[in-house]
Amino acid sequence: MRVKLIVAYDGTAYHGWQIQNNGISVQQVLNETISEFFGQEIKVVGASRTDTGVHAKGNVAAFDVDTKMPAEKIAYALNRSLPDDIVITESSEVPADFHPRFHKGRKTYEYRILNRTFPDPVRRHYSLFYHYPLDEKKMNEAAQYLVGEHDFTTFSSIHSQSATFVRTVYVCEVSRRGDEILLHIEGNGFLYNMVRIITGTLLEVGGGRMEPSHVGEILEKKDRSLAGPTAPPEGLTLIGIEYL
Amino acid sequence: MRVKLIVAYDGTAYHGWQIQNNGISVQQVLNETISEFFGQEIKVVGASRTDTGVHAKGNVAAFDVDTKMPAEKIAYALNRSLPDDIVITESSEVPADFHPRFHKGRKTYEYRILNRTFPDPVRRHYSLFYHYPLDEKKMNEAAQYLVGEHDFTTFSSIHSQSATFVRTVYVCEVSRRGDEILLHIEGNGFLYNMVRIITGTLLEVGGGRMEPSHVGEILEKKDRSLAGPTAPPEGLTLIGIEYL
Repeated sequence: MRVKLIVAYDGTAYHGWQIQNNGISVQQVLNETISEFFGQEIKVVGASRTDTGVHAKGNVAAFDVDTKMPAEKIAYALNRSLPDDIVITESSEVPADFHPRFHKGRKTYEYRILNRTFPDPVRRHYSLFYHYPLDEKKMNEAAQYLVGEHDFTTFSSIHSQSATFVRTVYVCEVSRRGDEILLHIEGNGFLYNMVRIITGTLLEVGGGRMEPSHVGEILEKKDRSLAGPTAPPEGLTLIGIEYL
Repeated sequence: MRVKLIVAYDGTAYHGWQIQNNGISVQQVLNETISEFFGQEIKVVGASRTDTGVHAKGNVAAFDVDTKMPAEKIAYALNRSLPDDIVITESSEVPADFHPRFHKGRKTYEYRILNRTFPDPVRRHYSLFYHYPLDEKKMNEAAQYLVGEHDFTTFSSIHSQSATFVRTVYVCEVSRRGDEILLHIEGNGFLYNMVRIITGTLLEVGGGRMEPSHVGEILEKKDRSLAGPTAPPEGLTLIGIEYL
């Protein structure tokens, strides 16, 4: 049967989701743990190849396995063997044609910015520390230019290997909650580094170095060099994927 | 001059506040960093000797130094040399008789319990994961028996070396916020392991193994063996100390 997993992880210790030569990845740990558990060579396929240091509350993976164990119990069984920075929060049986990456879905990411005078030791791996004042209302105003179907070349890494740079952003909201500024973004897919480049650009707006309307203008120019820098990974979390 | 520091730290990597032979402590890192910075041997005195794995948002330390640097700037200067799991959030000059531990103050601690089916990787060092259902209303009802001036022998480790076990608890409240249960406790001082033993006892109440009123009864008996187990350190944070 094909099993779908919802996977949460603290990305701090991993070289991202995807198997790498230069460091341990979440995918590699899952492959090894699941193969060992079932006594079969198992390879998981993931929905989102999150980068080094990026976290997930609900990444999605799938694998095929020959077992009589009820799919719902697999999460509990695997969590006993997984390291404590990777937790499977749900396992379920899915049709054999389900593919976490190619199936259409709605992805939600969150980027957390700790905006105050001093860093917070317990949040240092889970938010970007930014000590200059930020105007979250202007950031939110700028964010609205990104909502809709657009070519997001301006907000994509030059290393992106996508066939098309057109994506649809359903929601892009910036709000302040206590000492944190949160970017909440939902879309049908995101290009390589897209959320981090959007964040880096909104930080320019929040800091007064770019007008909100300029974000709409640079989006149309399809030129990465016009956007802000790529924000660091630790503030980013893949919240979840809702399949359509 | 005598300098007061407000110190935040992630206790995960430390053998507590106080200098130990068997591992690195927050106090040791501060002594070394501050001595190096001023080129003088400096020894800080702390308000609370938090245990291994316990965090602080606002522990207080003080030291004497011969310097012309304005006291308020010391925090910024030291943060440049401190590891990123220790942050000084305030430095100020205090009278020469100020002592962080012996000066009367009001201490606030918080204990976080993650109460849901699966653990959360990004909160694993900052909350106790507890997957059985908990009745936070009963926990809060039980907590009210602890408010006031009492002999807290029942809720103190047998290793406590205090001269008196009488302490005053001003506030003791349990509430649920999303998937977390929070214990918020304020008092004029806490015995060794007191907040963690209170938490361990309230977990017995929350899980239905002890009646709320029983907490009042065991408090009067002054017998540690009647209380619940000592809850693990990772859920505990010293929020702050307000000097009177």
